[in-house]
This record gives sequence, structure tokens and C-alpha cells, in this order.
Amino acid sequence: MKNIDAEKLHQEIEAFISERDWDQFHSLKNLSMALSVEASELVEIFQWMKEEDSNSIKNDPEKIGKVRDELADIFFFLLRLAHKTDTDLHQALIDKIGKNKQKYPVEKSRGSSKKYSEF
Amino acid sequence: MKNIDAEKLHQEIEAFISERDWDQFHSLKNLSMALSVEASELVEIFQWMKEEDSNSIKNDPEKIGKVRDELADIFFFLLRLAHKTDTDLHQALIDKIGKNKQKYPVEKSRGSSKKYSEF
Amino acid sequence: MKNIDAEKLHQEIEAFISERDWDQFHSLKNLSMALSVEASELVEIFQWMKEEDSNSIKNDPEKIGKVRDELADIFFFLLRLAHKTDTDLHQALIDKIGKNKQKYPVEKSRGSSKKYSEF
Amino acid sequence: MKNIDAEKLHQEIEAFISERDWDQFHSLKNLSMALSVEASELVEIFQWMKEEDSNSIKNDPEKIGKVRDELADIFFFLLRLAHKTDTDLHQALIDKIGKNKQKYPVEKSRGSSKKYSEF
Repeated sequence: MKNIDAEKLHQEIEAFISERDWDQFHSLKNLSMALSVEASELVEIFQWMKEEDSNSIKNDPEKIGKVRDELADIFFFLLRLAHKTDTDLHQALIDKIGKNKQKYPVEKSRGSSKKYSEF
Repeated sequence: MKNIDAEKLHQEIEAFISERDWDQFHSLKNLSMALSVEASELVEIFQWMKEEDSNSIKNDPEKIGKVRDELADIFFFLLRLAHKTDTDLHQALIDKIGKNKQKYPVEKSRGSSKKYSEF
Repeated sequence: MKNIDAEKLHQEIEAFISERDWDQFHSLKNLSMALSVEASELVEIFQWMKEEDSNSIKNDPEKIGKVRDELADIFFFLLRLAHKTDTDLHQALIDKIGKNKQKYPVEKSRGSSKKYSEF
Repeated sequence: MKNIDAEKLHQEIEAFISERDWDQFHSLKNLSMALSVEASELVEIFQWMKEEDSNSIKNDPEKIGKVRDELADIFFFLLRLAHKTDTDLHQALIDKIGKNKQKYPVEKSRGSSKKYSEF
């Protein structure tokens, strides 16, 4: 996986927002809505596709470009929310995977989406 | 902003999925649905709050813990989607901010959510 | 509230789908995704507005037209899902309000969004 | 399709809200968020299922009950939004199907999800 320079991205985001004076719109409530709207724009790309067709989207240059734009939009709001809530995203994910290891023990969860649906 | 070790997180995620044999459920279609469901769980925390109250959630240890868990869940699926689509998240975000600088010129966008609503 | 002729709407929807041979795309999984995408398009209209400004959207003919289009899209997929799951929407809502009366007793819930957040 | 008595449902909803003094939380912004959160709870039921398995959910009494509860929650907020925006849901859907007939001419759209993805 390619390196993510979180501090560099944070600086770019803050400059972009600050130049446009948009911080006034960025309550946690609004940022969470914006992230969910971007997530739905990603879903929209896949909604009528068969699962197996969704997996071969990499072969369609236009659509994979659109997917990457949506992933970037989601990451934009995720980093903004992490900044505003003093969340260490790396540590938060390590901690969450730890909790999920407890919640979904290997012997019970293996190959089953049953438990997984409560993820 | 705290450092994100993307390769380390990727290894943790892959091990977690592999031990449970869950990759079979992770089509791009399903992963995008799962990310949007996690995003809505974040929205649910804020949906009846006033904007200003959403911003002081850091003072409520239980709720801020819940917020961080949801941010982690979103990041989990975002990294999984990035991996499956060969997306360099750092570069994708730099590229997207570049496009948004064109789309929202400072002189026209300053202090206005009008244009911003089309973000 | 204006009358809803559910059977008439159902006939219109079925004819529209059938003429285009689109039923093949309408698994319950896909219809639920489509409904959630339409719901997010509604959210997008309001996401950067102040709550009080969202309430005066009726005075903006263009935006209220967009809102009504999104409400119609959501209703389209809701009726389609009700048809496919043999759900009596009227009765389902009466039943759900009955459950919510138990879940949110007046004396405990009055004026509080606390419990309400678990709605 | 079973009859929907919109006025009766509207009365039930208004009484439920009024007894709890919850109208204060029901800005259009908040109601749209709540509807999208309920839509995601519906998606959550189906997210890891194969499309064909989603269609046989009617055979699982527990899951189909959950689906109907979520459809009811979505309808609750849809009717509340229709009331607050003076939207005639029946007419809005008839109008929207009319627009979609123009947007997706039968000869071009038949059997294709390509155009449909822009629905």
C-alpha cells in the first residue's frame, strides 16, 4: 500500500478551506452528512452492477477515475473530521480491529457473513 | 495531524479478513455499501443535535468514543477499497484538491455555501 | 394530507419498469441501495444549510421542485420494495408507530432528543 | 397493492410527535438525515447477501419483519417531509415518472442499466 503523508494532506486541506472561508460550514454535524453523501455517490456507481462486474471496474478508465475521485472525497471529509475531533486515525483503526477480533472470534466467524452482518 | 502508517494498517486489515475468510464477501459493490452504512452510523450520532452542540461532543467521553469507532470503521472500508482498486489514496486526494481548486475559484467561492453545495 | 392512490401508482410504476425490461436489475439488495442513494440526494440539498434556512426552502421555487423530485424518487423505490416484499405499507406504519409508543413513553421522551437518537 | 390512507397516517404521526413535543427537532435538514439513516438500516440487512438471496428474504420471518419495520420508518419520515413541504406525494410521483419517461426513452433504455445508472 502506498504511503499516506497525513500531515501533508492535512495542510493542503486546511489551506483549501481557509482560502475559501468555508470552515464556518464545517460543524461535525455537517461534515458527517457530507461524508455520507460522498459515500452514496460511490454506491451509485455500483448500484445496478452485478458483484462480479463491480470487481472488474478497473478495466474501465472512465469509471475507475470516478471511483478514485469519490474515494478522495470521502478521505477529505474523514481527515477533516479526524482533525476536528482530535482523532488519531491510525490508532483508532488499530483499536477498532482489536475490538472486532473479540467480537468476531475466528472459530465462530470463519466463512460466515451471518455474524458479519452485525459488523 | 498524527502519522498514518498505511502499510501497517493494510497488513492488519488483510490478516483480520484472511483469518475469517471474509474476502469472498468483499466485492467492490458490497464494500461501497458497507462504507455508506458506517457513514450513516456516524450521521446518526449527530442527526438531532444542533450544529453547535455537535462541535462540543469532545466533552462527552462516551459519544466521542463512539464517533472514533465510526471513523475507524469508515477508514477500514476506505483502505480496503483503495487496496482493491489499486488507488493511491494520498495521490488521489492531492489530485482531487487540485480539481476542486479549479471548480471553486477563491474569488467566486469565498464565504459562500452556494457553489459549495455542488461540491 | 392529499390522498395517495397506491394501486394507481403501483400500476404506473410496473408499466414504466416493464416497458424498459428493468425488473432484472431490481433485486431487493439493489432496490435498497437505490433508495438510500436517492435519500442522500435529498440530504445533499440541505447539507450546508442552517436548520432554520432548510425550513424556508418552500420560498425557493427551484429548490423546492428539486426536493419534491427527490421525495418522489424515494417513494418510487419504497413502493417497489413494498410490492416485492408483500408489505402493506399502511399497516406496517401503523404497527411501527405502535411499537414506538412503547419504546418512547410520553413521560420519559417529552421534549428530549436523547432517547430519540435511538429511534 | 393495499390501500394507503394518507390522511389517517398523517393524523397518527402528528399525534405521536405532538405528544412527545418532538416537532422542535424536525427541521427539513434533520428529517432528511433521519430518512437517510433509516434507508441505510435497510441496506445493512442486505449488504453481504447475494442478490438472489436478498430476493428470498420473505422466507425468513425474522428478517422480513425487520425489513418491514425499516420500510415503515422510511415512510414515516417521507410523510413527515411531504407534510412540511406541502408536497402532494401522489402527484409528485406521477410527475416524476412522466419526466423519467422522457429521460429514458423505451427504445434506448430497454434492458440496459447503462442509462439507468443515471436514473
